[in-house]
Amino acid sequence: MPTLLHHPLDPSSRLARLMFAEYGIPVDLEEIKPWLREPQLLELNPAATLPILLDTKIAPAVGCLAVVHAIEERFAPAAIDGLFPADIGLRSEMWRLIEWVIFKLNDEVTRYVLEEKIIKRDSRGATPEPAVLRVAKTNLHEHMLYFNWLFATRPWLAGDTMTLADFALAAHLSTLDYLGDIDWGNAGETRDWYSRIKSRPAFRTLLNDRVVAMPPHKGYADLDF
Amino acid sequence: MPTLLHHPLDPSSRLARLMFAEYGIPVDLEEIKPWLREPQLLELNPAATLPILLDTKIAPAVGCLAVVHAIEERFAPAAIDGLFPADIGLRSEMWRLIEWVIFKLNDEVTRYVLEEKIIKRDSRGATPEPAVLRVAKTNLHEHMLYFNWLFATRPWLAGDTMTLADFALAAHLSTLDYLGDIDWGNAGETRDWYSRIKSRPAFRTLLNDRVVAMPPHKGYADLDF
Repeated sequence: MPTLLHHPLDPSSRLARLMFAEYGIPVDLEEIKPWLREPQLLELNPAATLPILLDTKIAPAVGCLAVVHAIEERFAPAAIDGLFPADIGLRSEMWRLIEWVIFKLNDEVTRYVLEEKIIKRDSRGATPEPAVLRVAKTNLHEHMLYFNWLFATRPWLAGDTMTLADFALAAHLSTLDYLGDIDWGNAGETRDWYSRIKSRPAFRTLLNDRVVAMPPHKGYADLDF
Repeated sequence: MPTLLHHPLDPSSRLARLMFAEYGIPVDLEEIKPWLREPQLLELNPAATLPILLDTKIAPAVGCLAVVHAIEERFAPAAIDGLFPADIGLRSEMWRLIEWVIFKLNDEVTRYVLEEKIIKRDSRGATPEPAVLRVAKTNLHEHMLYFNWLFATRPWLAGDTMTLADFALAAHLSTLDYLGDIDWGNAGETRDWYSRIKSRPAFRTLLNDRVVAMPPHKGYADLDF
């Protein structure tokens, strides 16, 4: 069985777990805190990022791009449509939006929230910086307006079919939702989309996540949120 | 013929141009400055990033990930080994290092240098901030130590074969070299690797680049630098 080194609130780890669950592939999860930069992690990945996929027969796949390609190539069942669509125009749109989520949304929102609310818990005396969280919130609002605009014209993030881009966005939004940073009352079309993707069997694994001494925000695990 | 919207010093645009040149595919280059956020760019890409690949028959490919996948899938000649290697372990290592370059090296070095030296030229009264450039220089030194360590044990960035990861790193280092930010005298094994990749016919297009009122640093276009 493959092993995934992950953290429950790391969005790229969540993306990998969603792929495994969607494809019905069992995986051993081993939780680590990448920000502690422990030697065993740095040896596998000097960039100290997650996820890392270990497979006895093959060299490790390290980082978001390596892991999503490895799962798609090694574990997508031949009998079903994979998360990388066959249509080349749709595939380009999927990569555009994956880049939007894993670079831009991460750079402007998710990494600030994780730094302030999760990573700082392991630094003695460090407390979340309200000014940083306010900037992240303002940026998130702009992103949500863009996603609402997209979802007003298409059922899934990249078009007519669910793709890996939907899982990438769901991974980030579910992390932010765990921490109570999403205002679903004003989330418009994105709320409808999230409700649909949250109801998928693949999502259950994420909804059971619990971080020590940091329970999820109210409604996180409810399908009717 | 496909059209590439690019900027000569944008590393992701350089990566796309290297791929086209390596595969021997002619492409129309249309230069834009993404930081001016002109309506014609924002309509194609609200993230205002480059490159953008336009093809009359297919929807545009927008951003680094969409464009490299589109070029590989649509334009790699069947007769030659492409830049995405067949071996799955090597392919994972390629994606790990592409992510290193386009996320980490960009985030810690390249984007600061471009912001201070290029983008600020278009803001009246803005001048490069020496403290920011010093941080970028210190960070670049750390990255070069890591690349030297890798190149001490393997001929190409991801292993025994040249892959897209080599082009990604060459795209970033050649932008930094144009601006005079690489100390080749202390670049160790990375200098030998750069000398080899710079000598490839595909690299010629980049060596002829000239940005208005900003000539390249001495040695930029010399194969014996």
